Amino acid sequence: MTYCLALCLDAGIVFAGDTRTNAGVDYVTNYRKVHVFRPTDDRVFVMLAAGSLATTHELLDGIERDLKLGGESLATVRDLPEAADYVGRKSRAIQDKHRPALAASGVSGEVSLLLGGQVSGTGADLVLIYPQGNYIGASEETPFLQIGEAKYGKPVLDRLAHRGLSLDQGASLALVSLDATVRSNITVGLPFDLACYARDSLAWPQQTRIEADSPYYVGVRQAWQQGFESMFAALPPFETTPTQG
Amino acid sequence: MTYCLALCLDAGIVFAGDTRTNAGVDYVTNYRKVHVFRPTDDRVFVMLAAGSLATTHELLDGIERDLKLGGESLATVRDLPEAADYVGRKSRAIQDKHRPALAASGVSGEVSLLLGGQVSGTGADLVLIYPQGNYIGASEETPFLQIGEAKYGKPVLDRLAHRGLSLDQGASLALVSLDATVRSNITVGLPFDLACYARDSLAWPQQTRIEADSPYYVGVRQAWQQGFESMFAALPPFETTPTQG
Repeated sequence: MTYCLALCLDAGIVFAGDTRTNAGVDYVTNYRKVHVFRPTDDRVFVMLAAGSLATTHELLDGIERDLKLGGESLATVRDLPEAADYVGRKSRAIQDKHRPALAASGVSGEVSLLLGGQVSGTGADLVLIYPQGNYIGASEETPFLQIGEAKYGKPVLDRLAHRGLSLDQGASLALVSLDATVRSNITVGLPFDLACYARDSLAWPQQTRIEADSPYYVGVRQAWQQGFESMFAALPPFETTPTQG
Repeated sequence: MTYCLALCLDAGIVFAGDTRTNAGVDYVTNYRKVHVFRPTDDRVFVMLAAGSLATTHELLDGIERDLKLGGESLATVRDLPEAADYVGRKSRAIQDKHRPALAASGVSGEVSLLLGGQVSGTGADLVLIYPQGNYIGASEETPFLQIGEAKYGKPVLDRLAHRGLSLDQGASLALVSLDATVRSNITVGLPFDLACYARDSLAWPQQTRIEADSPYYVGVRQAWQQGFESMFAALPPFETTPTQG
């Protein structure tokens, strides 16, 4: 399993994901799930994938091949929606190609993607691309999108995410959301990868890998756990209104 | 959907559930999901259900019928494991009866149950009964069990639940877990029902209904949201360790 999320902020876009992949519980490995493309100076894209690792790898190879061949590619799309449409079509084509063989083995080749970035002269944006190739965007009210094992890490985003966060604040929040998930679900695991894209910079995003013993992460974990305990201790005593029946 | 949970503490057992049920999004109603049985003075049981409302109602009717008829019933079981086995068999029999008709309509009659309580002379305990009729218990390390839409409310339990909590603390924690769930998922809804059983009392559990405007709940919501915001504001600034690639 996987958990990836991204926050579309006024300041830019924060991408974050774990690195654990598994086929069953006995073949657990780590793969980078945050992929950056900056084929030319006027554009940058970041893609995160959850689902079939094979589909993801074939998709990444296909995107790179298109960049070399010179036809339609991330270098030719005019804005993020066109990029999403292009990636969605490629993803679906790969799934279609393998579906009969995979279905015969009862395996899914589906992959969900987060794609964000910017082409010069157009706005920075973030979308979630479904396995079927269509996509949805983030909104003003809900500036985050999630793929994979998303439920454990959603409550903290529901409480704290808003577009006014700085990139650093967004990165901290993403880390807290990832931490909530790894505590509750063994199939999502460290290290975490983060990438922060500053809006309108068109620059390579700032990338960070967070290991289990990263001092910052250890500090955040500790502060968050202690914060929870203090919050809970400070709650007023439970008031019962007995209603027999 | 539904979210029910129970905490098995040294002080006793806390049961909590929402009241929303839905068949699709256009038939949303409220039903009590916390059911108390105290057929004789030497025993008390509390059952919570998530899944098919029809199976649940038929199960409740069957349990009541058995109590009147005088054969095997919650009045005759010798301890909680026997009660769990009895309820599990009844639940499965109802599902088996309706499976062909339900399957033809593509509907599931499955129900998951939490059953806790105590028979005089035996220990108070808590189990989760699967749709197949078998069950698991709570443990020393993980003193809570959940059914239904359980993921959103799990992180706070993972952080704060332990057997040393008082019944009131357990009730507050259950409320916080329910609150996290209703914020993130529209299919779980207020009011909430709570029941607190004091270990070895064999008394009717103290029951409380929490409405959206219950002053205590409003206070908890507010304190929790503000606590999150303070915690987040107090985190050290994000430290980046750039790793291009």
